[in-house]
Amino acid sequence: MTTTSTRETEIAADPTIPLIRISREFDAPPEKVFRAHTDPDLVVQWLGPRDLTMSIDHYDCRTGGSYRYLHTRDGEEYRFNGCFHEVRPAELIVQTFTFEGFPDGVALEKLVFEDLGDGRTRLVATSLCDSFEERDAMIASGMETGIVEGYQRLDELLAG
Amino acid sequence: MTTTSTRETEIAADPTIPLIRISREFDAPPEKVFRAHTDPDLVVQWLGPRDLTMSIDHYDCRTGGSYRYLHTRDGEEYRFNGCFHEVRPAELIVQTFTFEGFPDGVALEKLVFEDLGDGRTRLVATSLCDSFEERDAMIASGMETGIVEGYQRLDELLAG
Repeated sequence: MTTTSTRETEIAADPTIPLIRISREFDAPPEKVFRAHTDPDLVVQWLGPRDLTMSIDHYDCRTGGSYRYLHTRDGEEYRFNGCFHEVRPAELIVQTFTFEGFPDGVALEKLVFEDLGDGRTRLVATSLCDSFEERDAMIASGMETGIVEGYQRLDELLAG
Repeated sequence: MTTTSTRETEIAADPTIPLIRISREFDAPPEKVFRAHTDPDLVVQWLGPRDLTMSIDHYDCRTGGSYRYLHTRDGEEYRFNGCFHEVRPAELIVQTFTFEGFPDGVALEKLVFEDLGDGRTRLVATSLCDSFEERDAMIASGMETGIVEGYQRLDELLAG
Protein backbone atom coordinates (compact mmCIF):
# COMPACT_ATOMS: atom_id res chain seq x y z
CA MET A 1 0.00 0.00 0.00
CA THR A 2 1.27 3.47 -0.89
CA THR A 3 0.10 4.90 2.40
CA THR A 4 2.20 2.45 4.35
CA SER A 5 5.35 2.82 2.28
CA THR A 6 5.44 6.61 2.51
CA ARG A 7 5.06 6.33 6.27
CA GLU A 8 8.31 4.44 6.64
CA THR A 9 10.83 6.15 8.86
CA GLU A 10 14.26 6.30 7.23
CA ILE A 11 17.16 6.51 9.67
CA ALA A 12 20.62 6.93 8.16
CA ALA A 13 24.08 7.49 9.60
CA ASP A 14 26.05 10.00 7.52
CA PRO A 15 29.31 8.51 6.24
CA THR A 16 31.43 11.68 6.50
CA ILE A 17 30.23 13.58 9.59
CA PRO A 18 28.87 12.32 12.96
CA LEU A 19 25.26 12.95 12.01
CA ILE A 20 22.02 10.93 12.01
CA ARG A 21 19.42 11.83 9.37
CA ILE A 22 15.78 10.80 9.89
CA SER A 23 13.17 11.27 7.20
CA ARG A 24 9.41 10.68 7.61
CA GLU A 25 6.30 11.75 5.75
CA PHE A 26 2.99 12.64 7.40
CA ASP A 27 -0.57 12.92 6.07
CA ALA A 28 -1.03 16.41 7.50
CA PRO A 29 0.06 19.90 6.44
CA PRO A 30 3.28 21.45 7.82
CA GLU A 31 1.39 23.79 10.18
CA LYS A 32 -0.23 20.83 11.90
CA VAL A 33 2.92 18.66 12.11
CA PHE A 34 4.85 21.68 13.39
CA ARG A 35 2.24 22.42 16.08
CA ALA A 36 2.48 18.81 17.29
CA HIS A 37 6.19 19.54 17.91
CA THR A 38 5.76 22.87 19.69
CA ASP A 39 2.61 22.61 21.83
CA PRO A 40 3.56 20.68 24.99
CA ASP A 41 -0.02 19.40 25.37
CA LEU A 42 0.42 17.66 22.00
CA VAL A 43 4.12 16.71 22.33
CA VAL A 44 3.38 14.75 25.51
CA GLN A 45 0.91 12.57 23.57
CA TRP A 46 3.37 11.15 21.02
CA LEU A 47 7.07 11.75 21.74
CA GLY A 48 8.87 8.48 22.45
CA PRO A 49 8.02 4.78 22.49
CA ARG A 50 4.62 3.47 23.60
CA ASP A 51 5.80 1.80 26.80
CA LEU A 52 7.25 5.00 28.30
CA THR A 53 5.22 7.72 29.98
CA MET A 54 6.29 11.27 29.26
CA SER A 55 5.97 14.15 31.66
CA ILE A 56 7.11 17.65 30.85
CA ASP A 57 8.99 19.87 33.27
CA HIS A 58 8.88 22.78 30.82
CA TYR A 59 8.62 23.00 27.03
CA ASP A 60 8.99 26.57 25.85
CA CYS A 61 9.38 26.00 22.11
CA ARG A 62 10.35 29.44 20.78
CA THR A 63 13.64 30.97 19.62
CA GLY A 64 15.68 31.31 22.82
CA GLY A 65 13.43 29.00 24.85
CA SER A 66 14.30 25.69 26.49
CA TYR A 67 12.80 22.35 27.47
CA ARG A 68 13.15 19.52 29.93
CA TYR A 69 11.15 16.31 30.10
CA LEU A 70 11.10 12.93 31.73
CA HIS A 71 10.31 9.46 30.38
CA THR A 72 9.39 6.79 32.92
CA ARG A 73 8.79 3.02 32.77
CA ASP A 74 8.36 0.83 35.83
CA GLY A 75 10.33 3.13 38.07
CA GLU A 76 13.07 3.76 35.50
CA GLU A 77 13.55 7.46 34.75
CA TYR A 78 15.16 9.07 31.71
CA ARG A 79 15.52 12.86 31.67
CA PHE A 80 16.29 15.01 28.64
CA ASN A 81 16.87 18.72 28.18
CA GLY A 82 17.97 21.33 25.71
CA CYS A 83 17.46 24.82 24.36
CA PHE A 84 15.69 26.07 21.25
CA HIS A 85 18.14 27.95 19.05
CA GLU A 86 15.58 28.88 16.40
CA VAL A 87 11.90 28.21 15.81
CA ARG A 88 10.42 29.31 12.43
CA PRO A 89 6.69 28.51 12.26
CA ALA A 90 5.80 25.53 10.04
CA GLU A 91 9.34 25.49 8.68
CA LEU A 92 12.25 24.86 11.06
CA ILE A 93 13.21 23.98 14.62
CA VAL A 94 16.88 24.03 15.68
CA GLN A 95 17.50 22.75 19.18
CA THR A 96 20.08 21.12 21.39
CA PHE A 97 19.52 17.73 23.04
CA THR A 98 21.09 16.00 26.03
CA PHE A 99 20.20 12.73 27.74
CA GLU A 100 20.93 13.58 31.37
CA GLY A 101 22.27 10.08 32.00
CA PHE A 102 25.20 11.14 29.81
CA PRO A 103 25.33 14.87 30.61
CA ASP A 104 28.45 15.69 28.62
CA GLY A 105 26.91 14.48 25.36
CA VAL A 106 25.15 17.20 23.40
CA ALA A 107 23.56 16.87 19.98
CA LEU A 108 22.51 19.73 17.70
CA GLU A 109 19.17 18.86 16.12
CA LYS A 110 17.47 20.43 13.09
CA LEU A 111 13.89 19.63 12.13
CA VAL A 112 12.90 20.79 8.64
CA PHE A 113 9.20 20.70 7.72
CA GLU A 114 8.78 20.42 3.95
CA ASP A 115 5.37 21.05 2.36
CA LEU A 116 4.66 18.18 -0.08
CA GLY A 117 1.29 19.67 -1.11
CA ASP A 118 -2.07 17.88 -0.85
CA GLY A 119 -1.95 18.31 2.93
CA ARG A 120 1.22 16.27 3.33
CA THR A 121 4.56 17.00 4.97
CA ARG A 122 8.05 15.54 4.89
CA LEU A 123 9.94 15.97 8.14
CA VAL A 124 13.73 15.69 7.93
CA ALA A 125 15.38 15.63 11.34
CA THR A 126 19.15 15.63 11.74
CA SER A 127 21.20 15.11 14.90
CA LEU A 128 24.80 16.29 14.81
CA CYS A 129 26.96 14.72 17.53
CA ASP A 130 30.37 15.53 19.02
CA SER A 131 32.02 12.40 17.70
CA PHE A 132 31.37 9.28 15.65
CA GLU A 133 31.54 7.24 18.88
CA GLU A 134 28.75 9.29 20.46
CA ARG A 135 26.66 9.17 17.28
CA ASP A 136 27.03 5.39 17.01
CA ALA A 137 26.24 4.96 20.72
CA MET A 138 23.04 6.96 20.19
CA ILE A 139 22.03 4.66 17.33
CA ALA A 140 22.92 1.58 19.38
CA SER A 141 20.87 2.85 22.35
CA GLY A 142 17.59 1.71 20.80
CA MET A 143 16.59 5.17 19.59
CA GLU A 144 15.08 3.61 16.45
CA THR A 145 12.20 1.99 18.35
CA GLY A 146 11.41 5.23 20.12
CA ILE A 147 11.43 7.22 16.89
CA VAL A 148 9.42 4.74 14.78
CA GLU A 149 6.81 4.23 17.51
CA GLY A 150 6.71 7.93 18.32
CA TYR A 151 5.95 8.79 14.70
CA GLN A 152 3.24 6.11 14.59
CA ARG A 153 1.69 7.76 17.65
CA LEU A 154 2.04 11.13 15.90
CA ASP A 155 0.17 9.69 12.86
CA GLU A 156 -2.65 8.72 15.22
CA LEU A 157 -2.68 12.15 16.85
CA LEU A 158 -2.72 13.93 13.47
CA ALA A 159 -5.56 11.69 12.23
CA GLY A 160 -7.61 12.23 15.39
CA MET B 1 59.39 34.80 27.35
CA THR B 2 57.28 32.15 29.03
CA THR B 3 54.44 34.59 29.64
CA THR B 4 54.12 35.37 25.97
CA SER B 5 54.32 31.80 24.74
CA THR B 6 51.59 30.52 27.07
CA ARG B 7 49.35 33.33 25.87
CA GLU B 8 49.39 32.10 22.31
CA THR B 9 45.99 31.22 20.93
CA GLU B 10 46.02 27.83 19.23
CA ILE B 11 43.38 27.38 16.55
CA ALA B 12 43.14 23.95 14.94
CA ALA B 13 40.76 22.35 12.45
CA ASP B 14 39.95 18.77 13.43
CA PRO B 15 40.90 16.33 10.66
CA THR B 16 38.01 13.89 11.16
CA ILE B 17 34.95 15.96 12.16
CA PRO B 18 33.88 19.51 11.15
CA LEU B 19 35.14 21.08 14.34
CA ILE B 20 37.42 23.99 15.27
CA ARG B 21 39.38 23.71 18.52
CA ILE B 22 40.76 26.84 20.18
CA SER B 23 43.06 26.67 23.19
CA ARG B 24 44.25 29.66 25.24
CA GLU B 25 45.71 30.15 28.71
CA PHE B 26 44.94 33.08 30.99
CA ASP B 27 46.70 34.49 34.06
CA ALA B 28 43.51 34.42 36.13
CA PRO B 29 41.60 31.71 38.01
CA PRO B 30 38.69 29.86 36.33
CA GLU B 31 36.04 31.77 38.34
CA LYS B 32 37.31 35.06 36.95
CA VAL B 33 37.70 33.91 33.33
CA PHE B 34 34.25 32.32 33.52
CA ARG B 35 32.67 35.51 34.87
CA ALA B 36 34.17 37.48 31.99
CA HIS B 37 32.19 35.13 29.69
CA THR B 38 28.86 35.32 31.53
CA ASP B 39 28.49 38.90 32.81
CA PRO B 40 27.31 41.02 29.84
CA ASP B 41 28.95 44.14 31.36
CA LEU B 42 32.30 42.32 31.07
CA VAL B 43 31.64 40.42 27.80
CA VAL B 44 30.98 43.69 25.98
CA GLN B 45 34.48 44.90 26.93
CA TRP B 46 36.47 42.17 25.19
CA LEU B 47 34.50 39.92 22.78
CA GLY B 48 35.69 40.43 19.22
CA PRO B 49 38.37 42.40 17.39
CA ARG B 50 39.47 45.86 18.52
CA ASP B 51 38.05 47.74 15.55
CA LEU B 52 34.46 46.56 16.10
CA THR B 53 32.07 47.98 18.68
CA MET B 54 29.89 45.46 20.47
CA SER B 55 26.41 46.16 21.74
CA ILE B 56 24.29 43.55 23.47
CA ASP B 57 20.61 43.03 22.79
CA HIS B 58 20.39 40.43 25.57
CA TYR B 59 22.92 38.09 27.18
CA ASP B 60 21.23 35.74 29.61
CA CYS B 61 24.07 33.30 30.24
CA ARG B 62 22.41 30.50 32.24
CA THR B 63 21.24 26.99 31.36
CA GLY B 64 18.23 27.55 29.09
CA GLY B 65 19.01 31.22 28.47
CA SER B 66 19.85 32.93 25.19
CA TYR B 67 21.82 35.82 23.74
CA ARG B 68 21.95 38.24 20.84
CA TYR B 69 24.54 40.88 20.09
CA LEU B 70 25.71 43.24 17.40
CA HIS B 71 29.17 44.19 16.17
CA THR B 72 29.47 47.44 14.21
CA ARG B 73 32.28 49.13 12.26
CA ASP B 74 31.75 52.21 10.08
CA GLY B 75 28.10 51.48 9.48
CA GLU B 76 28.67 47.75 8.87
CA GLU B 77 26.57 45.57 11.17
CA TYR B 78 27.13 41.94 12.13
CA ARG B 79 24.53 40.25 14.33
CA PHE B 80 24.95 36.99 16.22
CA ASN B 81 22.59 34.92 18.37
CA GLY B 82 22.25 31.62 20.13
CA CYS B 83 20.98 29.79 23.17
CA PHE B 84 22.79 28.51 26.24
CA HIS B 85 22.35 24.75 26.51
CA GLU B 86 24.28 24.40 29.77
CA VAL B 87 26.20 26.71 32.06
CA ARG B 88 28.21 25.14 34.92
CA PRO B 89 29.94 27.81 37.02
CA ALA B 90 33.72 28.08 36.47
CA GLU B 91 33.64 24.85 34.47
CA LEU B 92 31.60 24.69 31.26
CA ILE B 93 29.46 26.67 28.84
CA VAL B 94 27.64 24.88 26.00
CA GLN B 95 25.92 27.20 23.56
CA THR B 96 24.73 27.51 19.99
CA PHE B 97 26.03 30.22 17.63
CA THR B 98 24.69 31.73 14.44
CA PHE B 99 25.95 34.66 12.38
CA GLU B 100 22.68 36.18 11.19
CA GLY B 101 24.18 37.00 7.80
CA PHE B 102 24.15 33.24 7.23
CA PRO B 103 21.07 32.28 9.26
CA ASP B 104 20.99 28.61 8.31
CA GLY B 105 24.47 27.99 9.69
CA VAL B 106 24.51 26.89 13.31
CA ALA B 107 27.55 25.87 15.35
CA LEU B 108 27.51 24.04 18.67
CA GLU B 109 30.13 25.57 20.95
CA LYS B 110 31.67 24.16 24.14
CA LEU B 111 33.88 26.23 26.41
CA VAL B 112 35.79 24.22 29.01
CA PHE B 113 37.55 26.12 31.81
CA GLU B 114 40.46 24.10 33.19
CA ASP B 115 42.09 25.09 36.46
CA LEU B 116 45.89 25.07 35.95
CA GLY B 117 46.56 26.09 39.56
CA ASP B 118 48.54 29.17 40.61
CA GLY B 119 45.65 31.38 39.54
CA ARG B 120 45.83 30.28 35.92
CA THR B 121 43.24 28.84 33.53
CA ARG B 122 43.26 27.01 30.23
CA LEU B 123 40.19 27.67 28.11
CA VAL B 124 39.45 25.12 25.40
CA ALA B 125 36.65 26.24 23.08
CA THR B 126 35.30 23.98 20.35
CA SER B 127 32.88 24.83 17.54
CA LEU B 128 31.12 21.94 15.86
CA CYS B 129 29.68 22.84 12.44
CA ASP B 130 27.15 21.21 10.13
CA SER B 131 29.67 20.44 7.42
CA PHE B 132 33.35 20.72 6.56
CA GLU B 133 32.45 23.46 4.03
CA GLU B 134 30.78 25.56 6.73
CA ARG B 135 33.64 24.96 9.16
CA ASP B 136 36.25 25.94 6.56
CA ALA B 137 34.21 29.02 5.57
CA MET B 138 34.17 30.07 9.24
CA ILE B 139 37.96 29.76 9.44
CA ALA B 140 38.36 31.65 6.14
CA SER B 141 36.06 34.45 7.37
CA GLY B 142 38.82 36.06 9.41
CA MET B 143 37.63 34.66 12.73
CA GLU B 144 41.27 34.23 13.83
CA THR B 145 41.89 37.98 14.13
CA GLY B 146 38.72 38.43 16.16
CA ILE B 147 39.61 35.59 18.49
CA VAL B 148 43.27 36.49 18.99
CA GLU B 149 42.51 40.19 19.54
CA GLY B 150 39.50 39.39 21.72
CA TYR B 151 41.62 37.24 24.02
CA GLN B 152 44.29 39.98 24.19
CA ARG B 153 41.54 42.37 25.28
CA LEU B 154 40.40 39.76 27.80
CA ASP B 155 43.97 39.58 29.18
CA GLU B 156 43.82 43.34 29.70
CA LEU B 157 40.41 43.13 31.39
CA LEU B 158 41.57 40.31 33.70
CA ALA B 159 44.72 42.24 34.62
CA GLY B 160 42.77 45.45 35.33
